[in-house]
Amino acid sequence: MAFEYGLTARFHEVDRVGIVFFGRAYEYAHICFEEVLTAAFGEVGTVFERLHFGMPLVHTEASYTRPIKHGDRLTVHASIERLGERSVTYTYAITGASDPDDLRCNVRLKHAFVDFPAFTKRGVPDAFVEGMRRIELLP
Amino acid sequence: MAFEYGLTARFHEVDRVGIVFFGRAYEYAHICFEEVLTAAFGEVGTVFERLHFGMPLVHTEASYTRPIKHGDRLTVHASIERLGERSVTYTYAITGASDPDDLRCNVRLKHAFVDFPAFTKRGVPDAFVEGMRRIELLP
Amino acid sequence: MAFEYGLTARFHEVDRVGIVFFGRAYEYAHICFEEVLTAAFGEVGTVFERLHFGMPLVHTEASYTRPIKHGDRLTVHASIERLGERSVTYTYAITGASDPDDLRCNVRLKHAFVDFPAFTKRGVPDAFVEGMRRIELLP
Amino acid sequence: MAFEYGLTARFHEVDRVGIVFFGRAYEYAHICFEEVLTAAFGEVGTVFERLHFGMPLVHTEASYTRPIKHGDRLTVHASIERLGERSVTYTYAITGASDPDDLRCNVRLKHAFVDFPAFTKRGVPDAFVEGMRRIELLP
Repeated sequence: MAFEYGLTARFHEVDRVGIVFFGRAYEYAHICFEEVLTAAFGEVGTVFERLHFGMPLVHTEASYTRPIKHGDRLTVHASIERLGERSVTYTYAITGASDPDDLRCNVRLKHAFVDFPAFTKRGVPDAFVEGMRRIELLP
Repeated sequence: MAFEYGLTARFHEVDRVGIVFFGRAYEYAHICFEEVLTAAFGEVGTVFERLHFGMPLVHTEASYTRPIKHGDRLTVHASIERLGERSVTYTYAITGASDPDDLRCNVRLKHAFVDFPAFTKRGVPDAFVEGMRRIELLP
Repeated sequence: MAFEYGLTARFHEVDRVGIVFFGRAYEYAHICFEEVLTAAFGEVGTVFERLHFGMPLVHTEASYTRPIKHGDRLTVHASIERLGERSVTYTYAITGASDPDDLRCNVRLKHAFVDFPAFTKRGVPDAFVEGMRRIELLP
Repeated sequence: MAFEYGLTARFHEVDRVGIVFFGRAYEYAHICFEEVLTAAFGEVGTVFERLHFGMPLVHTEASYTRPIKHGDRLTVHASIERLGERSVTYTYAITGASDPDDLRCNVRLKHAFVDFPAFTKRGVPDAFVEGMRRIELLP
């Protein structure tokens, strides 16, 4: 069960060695997360206002396997690694667009849940689980 | 004669007021320029090595008409405003994706031409003009 | 009458040719603008809430004279070029830190004034003029 | 044994909720790393050319404790967590500038060593260890 989104590595994201700056991998993963939210809940610009919860990040990590270069066409493969009592962890495998075995980077983003806009911690909202089931990221 | 490319405004590009940071308009324009280069000359990551010229920016400007918000689907419309003896100026009209009259921002990027990798100034390369004709950005 | 602020060009801001991406000049100028606001009005994070006006950008431009390279220590020299009836235009000369004649880039940022948070256009607020006088950017 | 560097959270780094985008923590950590390199080896723009090795990132992670807001003055505290046979791991504690107990975020960056510019893996260079000793990040 994965959600896929296509991206291209851009000139302003590449460093002096011709390789995408390591921090950009987090932007690529979060762009895919925004498309996950859009697929599950519609318009991302108002999603948390409409759902009355937020999903701040509490831990993030990335492992770099092979460099991403300027102009590379990529696919980000999102899946849910773990749904806890009060958090959810997504993994994003970033690969070449034409070859899912051409792994460049694995990103893991762990979100807590908070009431919105109060920002007080809370358990996993039912609406979140239902939305992820709709796009088949949860069984 | 215009070249179009689609983009989405992302969470990390939006400021506290919910509006895309003004400097991002230049990134959007340059992303479209990279797609122009790809359409005209193939793989952008090696384009200047292959063509033996470079196109550093000497002047850039942008006018902001209506705000871009998080999640907005946009179209960037690139055209060549002026081809000089030693420079070329592109304009990029950034509009809503579904309505080309919904203008958000106009960006103008003026490039000089240099020999690559020497970076000495030079006139407009024939190969540049031919490439822009191939994608119908020049008559 | 100028306000100066020091900056360093960072690895993630430099492109494949070893030169700071042109769009970063706008970030450098705006960072200096934030320090101008801080000097004039205190804590920048709450400045527009406290002053009840906002300053959205309506036009921005930059001219590039000499490249900025990774690690370069820079000074941004801010001044007010024009105070209109409903707008203000700042210029930011970005030079080498040790030599104010070593001009790299000139950035011009034109702001409108709006009531905050309503975002309706308005004339130049007295509090703005007083603040700029306090830091000697207006006579 | 720590190396400290001061930073300010900028407008273009803050998201719609008024909190610095999580990916910026990696930029803050890497900015401090660049200052570590400068202190140990001089001019950062040419450091790897001069030293004949490079330090690509193989794993990065961050834990977020308290939000960073627009205008916050911060200190990044760099230390070496582990020196392996072929890698080094730095940790960067990002705190409020006026209170080292006001922890906002912990970033960990693990670098491999490669010959430069060949980019073939290698053991820890003696020159690296000597440089880190000079600035007291290694005993």
